[in-house]
Amino acid sequence: MGEASVIEDHERSRRTGSSIRTGRLEAFSDGVFAIAITVLVLELAVPALAEDDLLHTLGAQWPSYLAYFVSFATIGSLWLAHTVMTEHVDHADAVFMRLNLLVLLVVSVLPFTTRLVGEFVGEDKPERVAVTIYGINLILASVVLSLLWRYAAHARLLDPDVGEDDFRILTQRFTPGIGGYVVLLIVGQFRPTIAVVGFLVIALFLMLPFARPERRDHSSAPGSDG
Amino acid sequence: MGEASVIEDHERSRRTGSSIRTGRLEAFSDGVFAIAITVLVLELAVPALAEDDLLHTLGAQWPSYLAYFVSFATIGSLWLAHTVMTEHVDHADAVFMRLNLLVLLVVSVLPFTTRLVGEFVGEDKPERVAVTIYGINLILASVVLSLLWRYAAHARLLDPDVGEDDFRILTQRFTPGIGGYVVLLIVGQFRPTIAVVGFLVIALFLMLPFARPERRDHSSAPGSDG
Amino acid sequence: MGEASVIEDHERSRRTGSSIRTGRLEAFSDGVFAIAITVLVLELAVPALAEDDLLHTLGAQWPSYLAYFVSFATIGSLWLAHTVMTEHVDHADAVFMRLNLLVLLVVSVLPFTTRLVGEFVGEDKPERVAVTIYGINLILASVVLSLLWRYAAHARLLDPDVGEDDFRILTQRFTPGIGGYVVLLIVGQFRPTIAVVGFLVIALFLMLPFARPERRDHSSAPGSDG
Amino acid sequence: MGEASVIEDHERSRRTGSSIRTGRLEAFSDGVFAIAITVLVLELAVPALAEDDLLHTLGAQWPSYLAYFVSFATIGSLWLAHTVMTEHVDHADAVFMRLNLLVLLVVSVLPFTTRLVGEFVGEDKPERVAVTIYGINLILASVVLSLLWRYAAHARLLDPDVGEDDFRILTQRFTPGIGGYVVLLIVGQFRPTIAVVGFLVIALFLMLPFARPERRDHSSAPGSDG
Repeated sequence: MGEASVIEDHERSRRTGSSIRTGRLEAFSDGVFAIAITVLVLELAVPALAEDDLLHTLGAQWPSYLAYFVSFATIGSLWLAHTVMTEHVDHADAVFMRLNLLVLLVVSVLPFTTRLVGEFVGEDKPERVAVTIYGINLILASVVLSLLWRYAAHARLLDPDVGEDDFRILTQRFTPGIGGYVVLLIVGQFRPTIAVVGFLVIALFLMLPFARPERRDHSSAPGSDG
Repeated sequence: MGEASVIEDHERSRRTGSSIRTGRLEAFSDGVFAIAITVLVLELAVPALAEDDLLHTLGAQWPSYLAYFVSFATIGSLWLAHTVMTEHVDHADAVFMRLNLLVLLVVSVLPFTTRLVGEFVGEDKPERVAVTIYGINLILASVVLSLLWRYAAHARLLDPDVGEDDFRILTQRFTPGIGGYVVLLIVGQFRPTIAVVGFLVIALFLMLPFARPERRDHSSAPGSDG
Repeated sequence: MGEASVIEDHERSRRTGSSIRTGRLEAFSDGVFAIAITVLVLELAVPALAEDDLLHTLGAQWPSYLAYFVSFATIGSLWLAHTVMTEHVDHADAVFMRLNLLVLLVVSVLPFTTRLVGEFVGEDKPERVAVTIYGINLILASVVLSLLWRYAAHARLLDPDVGEDDFRILTQRFTPGIGGYVVLLIVGQFRPTIAVVGFLVIALFLMLPFARPERRDHSSAPGSDG
Repeated sequence: MGEASVIEDHERSRRTGSSIRTGRLEAFSDGVFAIAITVLVLELAVPALAEDDLLHTLGAQWPSYLAYFVSFATIGSLWLAHTVMTEHVDHADAVFMRLNLLVLLVVSVLPFTTRLVGEFVGEDKPERVAVTIYGINLILASVVLSLLWRYAAHARLLDPDVGEDDFRILTQRFTPGIGGYVVLLIVGQFRPTIAVVGFLVIALFLMLPFARPERRDHSSAPGSDG
């Protein structure tokens, strides 16, 4: 096999094979994550100034800012998990593409449910409804992302380099702490604001770097975990 | 021919040839699809709370959520079809670039027509108008995407690997079920909501994975259909 | 020179050299073009229904739709020109990066001026002001894009493959028809709507494929002009 | 080592190693920067026409346009700095990814604080509050970006090609002129508009091309600084 054909094969595989497919899946996903995380800010209302004190007026909107920050951290942590995930996925298949769309659906609804929280916190009953809807959205995001990973393993889409141990650690990582969310949903019926702070803690916890399974591959840079 | 020149040629072709062009066409299209699918959520109105019951108020907005979901599924299915299409296209030409812009025009109007449906469902006559406009938008999206594929074949832009059988299967796949849409448009004059549910069924049907023609090329991963 | 070093050099040049820079410049530009062209739709107002006839109400908004279409066609044609341009640019320099940001500034203002036209057409004096501002925005977009090309030539950033003839044809192509715009600006003082239709004609004209200078390079696919 | 294995190694490193990671980090960052810079325009309000004179009404909104322009220039300069930075970064690690998210958080809040300035300039006390919040946002953006660079150096993520001198020059470049911002924040308590003009001057100054350290690498094109 000469050099020319090696390179041609390599090129053809880029063009027609699975790697290109993963390329567009990643580009499209990055786009949706980036847009969802950025349009969150469009939901922050500039207050109609009732009095002369802007700082006070803005301060009274703190639940909006808290919800903004929770959603930013959540989408950020989901994106980080998604990059770690697709890095260990060798190629996509039809179901993987569609499950990924489902992840994106749940993520792109977040700006709406975030606004609900910001709008109704402080209004007693509506507040509890808004926080519950928001919490369910957050749970769904984690669950669907976890499904995506499990499907990839089930359908043998993972990189052959991913060993048993790696897989266990990653799966554990991508399995959402449903328990924590359920507790917060219940707390939210009584103290909605505490539930929102709890969602923030979960999001920040999910963003913690974790010890990535060491790749046997020599080409992986040290310290480049997710 | 030495390795150096092979690689240089390969590089030069990436820089000046058609593959780069397809690259930016795909990047731009991914961008527009991703933005259109994500800004749909901005059209979802947070209700001004008439009464104390947020859940009830949100529930009354269900046509908005249905329309949101239909549009998400439709844009998702169009994007999936677009990735399958460009994967079988070897290079673009000037007309292909412009037809692709037409596809993007029709797709990026969808958030507007979606909002029309969400806003006017339940208002009898306006509802029927809104659903008709929405249905026409959906038909146009499928028709223009189908034109793009037929043009690519006509102008010999397809990958040489795409055989007769492959082409027939793909063409069939990209040919919109105009019949179904027309029936739903008529239904929409009497029962607009049923028409919207019908549009959802079509979108979900279009998202079904389909048996992709087997590539003769050995480099294509098994199961990686669109 | 062995294969390894050839590939390493090639890789290093991708990582540190100018081509990567052009890569991110293109990605960022594609992003801004894609967002600008897609958020145009957010400016389309869903009418508050004064009467029962939605079709009539929408029909009365036709100037909004016309302006939307003009802006879509203009941003589309600017993006097409930008892809042709960067394809003939070998590497960027600092000034090129900043001039490109200026192009993006003018492009991303278009959704705002488009909305001005849609809002005030039909209101006599404001209409003429809105159309004038819009026209100036369109002129600026063409002028700045043209400057970008001339700068690239002046600073020797062009691909060495671009010959004298190629350069002349491309320069002519990227030189805006200032004359046409000025005439339309004057017409706009009396018949604003005709001016807007004129802008549409220019945008569609700019989108016409043009005979691209033939590349001496054998790797360029036939018919792949911009 | 044969050609095939060289190429395979090269490919494997692209797929699993750190360069891919930086790839998605760059793509996601480009997305957020591009969206933030483009949605700024959505914050520009089309005036409800109090009188017949649109030009006058628009003219009265000049602080909005000034704030728009300051934010565009600031986000543009941050993006330019980010491209120069990641070009000298060889690979990412977990902390780098999270610090980068923090940069994106601060950047994507800018459209909101920009709107605050546009809305309240001219209203005396609220104006001073808005300008102060805006200035703090601008400072944070520079500080966090600077932290990202220092962390990359500290964690040895930089390209081995980056020498002592290069590093000193770049670090100086990425160190924000906190002094200037603090002066402007104080000025803003008395003359808010002058402070905003000052922020514009800083943004334009940061956009000035700077003498990039010469790469020892022969593959770097002359003049391709940041």
